[in-house]
Amino acid sequence: MAILETFPNRHPGRDYTIIHTCPEFTAVCPKTGQPDFATIRISYVPDRECVELKSLKLYLQGYRDRGIYYEHVTNVILDDLVAALKPRRITVEGDFHVRGGISSVVRADYEAPRRARARSRR
Amino acid sequence: MAILETFPNRHPGRDYTIIHTCPEFTAVCPKTGQPDFATIRISYVPDRECVELKSLKLYLQGYRDRGIYYEHVTNVILDDLVAALKPRRITVEGDFHVRGGISSVVRADYEAPRRARARSRR
Amino acid sequence: MAILETFPNRHPGRDYTIIHTCPEFTAVCPKTGQPDFATIRISYVPDRECVELKSLKLYLQGYRDRGIYYEHVTNVILDDLVAALKPRRITVEGDFHVRGGISSVVRADYEAPRRARARSRR
Amino acid sequence: MAILETFPNRHPGRDYTIIHTCPEFTAVCPKTGQPDFATIRISYVPDRECVELKSLKLYLQGYRDRGIYYEHVTNVILDDLVAALKPRRITVEGDFHVRGGISSVVRADYEAPRRARARSRR
Amino acid sequence: MAILETFPNRHPGRDYTIIHTCPEFTAVCPKTGQPDFATIRISYVPDRECVELKSLKLYLQGYRDRGIYYEHVTNVILDDLVAALKPRRITVEGDFHVRGGISSVVRADYEAPRRARARSRR
Amino acid sequence: MAILETFPNRHPGRDYTIIHTCPEFTAVCPKTGQPDFATIRISYVPDRECVELKSLKLYLQGYRDRGIYYEHVTNVILDDLVAALKPRRITVEGDFHVRGGISSVVRADYEAPRRARARSRR
Amino acid sequence: MAILETFPNRHPGRDYTIIHTCPEFTAVCPKTGQPDFATIRISYVPDRECVELKSLKLYLQGYRDRGIYYEHVTNVILDDLVAALKPRRITVEGDFHVRGGISSVVRADYEAPRRARARSRR
Amino acid sequence: MAILETFPNRHPGRDYTIIHTCPEFTAVCPKTGQPDFATIRISYVPDRECVELKSLKLYLQGYRDRGIYYEHVTNVILDDLVAALKPRRITVEGDFHVRGGISSVVRADYEAPRRARARSRR
Amino acid sequence: MAILETFPNRHPGRDYTIIHTCPEFTAVCPKTGQPDFATIRISYVPDRECVELKSLKLYLQGYRDRGIYYEHVTNVILDDLVAALKPRRITVEGDFHVRGGISSVVRADYEAPRRARARSRR
Amino acid sequence: MAILETFPNRHPGRDYTIIHTCPEFTAVCPKTGQPDFATIRISYVPDRECVELKSLKLYLQGYRDRGIYYEHVTNVILDDLVAALKPRRITVEGDFHVRGGISSVVRADYEAPRRARARSRR
Repeated sequence: MAILETFPNRHPGRDYTIIHTCPEFTAVCPKTGQPDFATIRISYVPDRECVELKSLKLYLQGYRDRGIYYEHVTNVILDDLVAALKPRRITVEGDFHVRGGISSVVRADYEAPRRARARSRR
Repeated sequence: MAILETFPNRHPGRDYTIIHTCPEFTAVCPKTGQPDFATIRISYVPDRECVELKSLKLYLQGYRDRGIYYEHVTNVILDDLVAALKPRRITVEGDFHVRGGISSVVRADYEAPRRARARSRR
Repeated sequence: MAILETFPNRHPGRDYTIIHTCPEFTAVCPKTGQPDFATIRISYVPDRECVELKSLKLYLQGYRDRGIYYEHVTNVILDDLVAALKPRRITVEGDFHVRGGISSVVRADYEAPRRARARSRR
Repeated sequence: MAILETFPNRHPGRDYTIIHTCPEFTAVCPKTGQPDFATIRISYVPDRECVELKSLKLYLQGYRDRGIYYEHVTNVILDDLVAALKPRRITVEGDFHVRGGISSVVRADYEAPRRARARSRR
Repeated sequence: MAILETFPNRHPGRDYTIIHTCPEFTAVCPKTGQPDFATIRISYVPDRECVELKSLKLYLQGYRDRGIYYEHVTNVILDDLVAALKPRRITVEGDFHVRGGISSVVRADYEAPRRARARSRR
Repeated sequence: MAILETFPNRHPGRDYTIIHTCPEFTAVCPKTGQPDFATIRISYVPDRECVELKSLKLYLQGYRDRGIYYEHVTNVILDDLVAALKPRRITVEGDFHVRGGISSVVRADYEAPRRARARSRR
Repeated sequence: MAILETFPNRHPGRDYTIIHTCPEFTAVCPKTGQPDFATIRISYVPDRECVELKSLKLYLQGYRDRGIYYEHVTNVILDDLVAALKPRRITVEGDFHVRGGISSVVRADYEAPRRARARSRR
Repeated sequence: MAILETFPNRHPGRDYTIIHTCPEFTAVCPKTGQPDFATIRISYVPDRECVELKSLKLYLQGYRDRGIYYEHVTNVILDDLVAALKPRRITVEGDFHVRGGISSVVRADYEAPRRARARSRR
Repeated sequence: MAILETFPNRHPGRDYTIIHTCPEFTAVCPKTGQPDFATIRISYVPDRECVELKSLKLYLQGYRDRGIYYEHVTNVILDDLVAALKPRRITVEGDFHVRGGISSVVRADYEAPRRARARSRR
Repeated sequence: MAILETFPNRHPGRDYTIIHTCPEFTAVCPKTGQPDFATIRISYVPDRECVELKSLKLYLQGYRDRGIYYEHVTNVILDDLVAALKPRRITVEGDFHVRGGISSVVRADYEAPRRARARSRR
């Protein structure tokens, strides 16, 4: 997988929000081998690092040939972003196209523990 | 009725949300024998189990020939999903087409008692 | 006026919401004698009774020839539904068409006192 | 029924188009006695007369208590406007609300014979 | 199948258009046994007969349990309406929900031969 | 300026909301002399008086030839309505058309002090 | 009234189209004295002259205090633009806000005679 | 590449239209190696053969790993469908996502020569 | 200005259409020095050459600091594309943001003379 | 950079909200030198000063030739507005066009400390 690159947050003294929306996400269903399509929405409050946009694009492209379920992929993207960015708060949402007449959304959040946030602002 | 199959939640340590939207629901009005049409929206926070998408489709198709009222069917779907998934929280919404110039929405929620949730996270 | 008929709520142990939307409401302006048009939206949490859909349609049609003001009709519909259903909570909203270049919405709520609700759940 | 009043077209030397859209039309179904609702759209090229807007409103309100079918009412409105305006061309469209899960549009046109139009421009 | 009933066209001297839109059509895929869903749009110029709306509803409901392909059902509805109404012109359009990530529309027309139309206007 | 007329609130025992939307507001920019255009939205909980709709229309038309800034006019309309209606709560919003590539909204609220409201309900 | 200023068309060898849309048109109803509101749409193929945008704005503002009917004002704007621009083709459309529950559009065209156009291209 | 399978057209005596819309098309840019995304729209009048929907899905999925330009891929899909279906008329449209701030549509048609069509109807 | 680069049309035997939409066009008003913003839409039938997408982006960016009027810039873009591509047919449309309460569209076409097209297909 | 001019708030005794939306923001990407495009939304509760609209327009135009990242520019606009207006509360949101298939929003808030606000109301 491509590495999620970061750049330093120039405004760490302020809680602000960055939202990235990628309607071009595709992976493969591990059960049927058929391609899945989704819009991935990422919303986070950066601490010391912001995600670099081009590396995010390449990271998301890295799922193109992987077999992975809806619920899992949304949580894995969240875990990878938490590991790379250590954000104060983050939400990842996968909005998947209709399959069998049913469309599906999976939404997962992470919030940094208070202590960690206090430290990171010093 | 088709059985609601489940698969293990791989991220039980995190409260996250799964939303399924099915605009292809149809049942029969028990009074008039006429078909009813609705969009069913299901939103839940899984505990140990997630609902398998294909079994959900078959379960909802199981209402095609049943005579059942709006208010009742929404609550029954909720009860069946609670029994099968034992979710932390769940909302079921039935959005029914116009009849007699009036459209109707029925929305019901369930939240697991605190004790049950504490146990299930061990 | 047509009588608002009810049927027993089969799920009184649960607070759930029923929403009816009627875009075919018409009454008469008492001042000008001109017809008024509105969408009526009713949202309630039933206690022991639900409103029967056909009787609701006939009840709303009963305003067709009555002269009544926007503010009053919305409150009267609320009063009549409270009397017939004794709901736990209810909102009635009248969304009236443009008159003199101005459109108008009137929205009124009712919530049952705690004691009444406690009793009704026994 | 209210009379369709007219006023003289001040620009008879030019073929131009006037469109009136009335989303507040209601009549009664002759079969069921239930109210019907529609948007009436009128588009015409005036010859010597234009329809006066207030009289058009009152004329359309005149159907409020009449029992009349979709197909018939659209053609009758067309006939009445042709008789009152003798327009060069006219289209009347009734766009009726959903009944039994089906919405309906009826659209009828009239075009004055060439000779009549030639005369009226002298 | 329910019979398509008709009533006499009261305005046969005029070519006008009637459009019915039914978003509540469902049939069964003959290959997979799964339900299909579509919106059926019918637009026709009546000659001596118009289709009665309730019988049209029941006729379309008659496909609920039939196994039939998209292309075929649209043409069969057209054939049945032509046989019942002998219209001057008619278009039937089936707009089918997404299957395998692809949505499909099938549209078929019929126009009565000139001679037939001339006769029917006598 | 036209006077804001009122009529007695027939349901003072209940907190309910009245919303008026006027997309036909125009005034004059005091700096450039150019006309400004806006939609004015008024939402209030009446106490003893409701605003009469026609007088509201005439009141808003009274700004047609006045030179007044966005921020000021929204607050002045609020002040005038508070003076005339003594409402329990009120919000006035002016939504102004694009000028210099920028559109602007000004929104102001008023809430009656507790003591005043208690008295007025006796 | 403000004068419609023009500037020379730099591409007279080509038939091309210029469309101006003004949603900020207001005049006064000569019957009731009440303000009217409309969107004016102008679409033309210039010959030797194009209309200067600021003078068009001022020209349209010139109707602010004039009493004039829908049908008439649309034709007068067309006549004034034809006189000022001598365009190859032009359409003027006035799209007027709801009055008495009815919205109205008036649309008028002009096309230069062939001879005039031939000359102007020399 | 997957083979485009067909099934016999059961209504060859009638010119009718089949439209397939696939918003899940993806290929690779031959220049940059980056994935491209598009909606493919196919509209055709069948002669003796219709395209089988599942094989169409697999055929379009076959581009997932191919490097191919916008203009070329749209024409190649058209050529392949013409070869497989020998339709009376066909249009293929590729509607490609924004790249460098610019979105692109490529649309290509084919119409069978008169002689071929005459023969195929015998 | 950036040069409009081209690549050979691989399907010159077929008249097909390429549409590019760029909502990120900006230039400078020569009169006021203020920036103008527009969406540029280009639709053409290629002959021997197609425009290369990146060079088109750079070409359109080349107007960023140029003072040029709406009518003129649309025609100049058309002229430049005709010179670079010698297309069979082309339309350029500039859709400019609101200025002074008026939005403007300028649309210009070019069609190659028959003789030129015949030659180019040899 | 242009200076953000202010004018005195005439209603400092009331917390009210002013929202400015500018869809015509453009800057330059410091990495690629390519232009970026965004809609800037500013929402604030004024204290003693309001931002003058024309100076805001010129201020935002001042970024046209500056190389600056999404995250940074949104925070800098916020800092500059806080310095110029000393508002009670303010939110700045930059909504940036698609780059590499991903669109981005950056949203930052500021709230004046209680003490400062208390003082400013004296």
